Amino acid sequence: MSSKKIQVCLSPALLPFYDLNNTIAVVIDIFRASSSMCYGLANGARAIIPVEEIDECLSYQGKGYLLAAERDGEVVEGFDFGNSPFSYTREKVEGKTIVLTTTNGTRAIKQCTRAEAVVIGSFLNITALSNWLKDQDRHVLLVCAGWKNHIGLEDMVFAGALVNRLVGSGIELDDAAYAAQATYLGAQDSLAAFLANASHSKRMRHLNIKRDIAFCLQTDKVSAIPILKDGALTCLLEHVQTAQ
Amino acid sequence: MSSKKIQVCLSPALLPFYDLNNTIAVVIDIFRASSSMCYGLANGARAIIPVEEIDECLSYQGKGYLLAAERDGEVVEGFDFGNSPFSYTREKVEGKTIVLTTTNGTRAIKQCTRAEAVVIGSFLNITALSNWLKDQDRHVLLVCAGWKNHIGLEDMVFAGALVNRLVGSGIELDDAAYAAQATYLGAQDSLAAFLANASHSKRMRHLNIKRDIAFCLQTDKVSAIPILKDGALTCLLEHVQTAQ
Repeated sequence: MSSKKIQVCLSPALLPFYDLNNTIAVVIDIFRASSSMCYGLANGARAIIPVEEIDECLSYQGKGYLLAAERDGEVVEGFDFGNSPFSYTREKVEGKTIVLTTTNGTRAIKQCTRAEAVVIGSFLNITALSNWLKDQDRHVLLVCAGWKNHIGLEDMVFAGALVNRLVGSGIELDDAAYAAQATYLGAQDSLAAFLANASHSKRMRHLNIKRDIAFCLQTDKVSAIPILKDGALTCLLEHVQTAQ
Repeated sequence: MSSKKIQVCLSPALLPFYDLNNTIAVVIDIFRASSSMCYGLANGARAIIPVEEIDECLSYQGKGYLLAAERDGEVVEGFDFGNSPFSYTREKVEGKTIVLTTTNGTRAIKQCTRAEAVVIGSFLNITALSNWLKDQDRHVLLVCAGWKNHIGLEDMVFAGALVNRLVGSGIELDDAAYAAQATYLGAQDSLAAFLANASHSKRMRHLNIKRDIAFCLQTDKVSAIPILKDGALTCLLEHVQTAQ
């Protein structure tokens, strides 16, 4: 492989312009899908099946799955739960397989399936994930799920935090990676205050889920790295990393 | 108008997701189209007609126009010049109408025509432009031309510099505007060094046009604000701003 590239795709709408050959795609949807996926698998969920549409999610009904659906920040009526991390505790998910559809995150995952591998990133698993990515002889594309194809500040800041851990000799960054890193470095000392600016924080404010946001900004709560295999996310076991 | 919005569109591919009603679009292609447009009009060019395709540009041949075409950073064979600012001096362009096609900038302009107004931004006219934008009772969308739909670091940093001058009470930023501003604030003390990272700087390095880059990073060299009217860019005269 030529020098290892770390690139950042700031919106799913820009994915068609990236070459995903020999590339690990890291899907990022900090508020809240990717955080909840990491947390749920760390808490013993057997698998999480990401689906794009609500109808597809419903087709799993009555077959022993937990069904989770979020649209525009809220749990869709008739579903067990949405994408709040507090719905992914051990008590609720251990041993279960969850079928999940969300506004942005699960769709971004589906758009990355032509990559060599698809994994899920969040502040909750950042150290485990960055250590694993460093060991891989593959290019890395950080895919920010954003909000309806717009940039999500929290996703970009997390991408920047990851870039900041992955830079080093022989690593080549694209322009979006430099921008994400600079944004993260500017924000890191007052992350929560900076991300209060994010449109998603504002959107979620009326939903009274401040504690979800605070939860999703914790680092290294888990060492689970969700990886997509045969259409389902399961825990990557080949590299177990102790959380700091 | 509800509170004035300042938004940043980081790639022309994301333009379909923005509402351009009651909005001034500022097209940004720092290396080098938007810089050369500002410089050329300040130097007395009568107008600059942006066209998307080389064939369209050629159709103006033999009719008294200067024909300019750039693809992949180089002057297209058979044309008078490309997008280097040194081709837009008073001696070369005064009293002339230029027909110009470039890889990214002129295409971005064409994609913004549904906006209320389309103007051109660069470091060369940043003070004149930001003062004028402050006075307008319109939303503002900063459109980064980038490189073949990828993010251009220099365009994003300039967008951030502009956001940084426009923020204030009653102004609402989108997430990309916050990110651009943070990127600019991180870069401002060593702008040239930071932008040496930009993929466009790297692409242009072999073309030996370092002096073009240095030229395009000068602030307030001109007070001209190019504005699109009937398919041609001319100087906005209603507000003449003395350069600092």
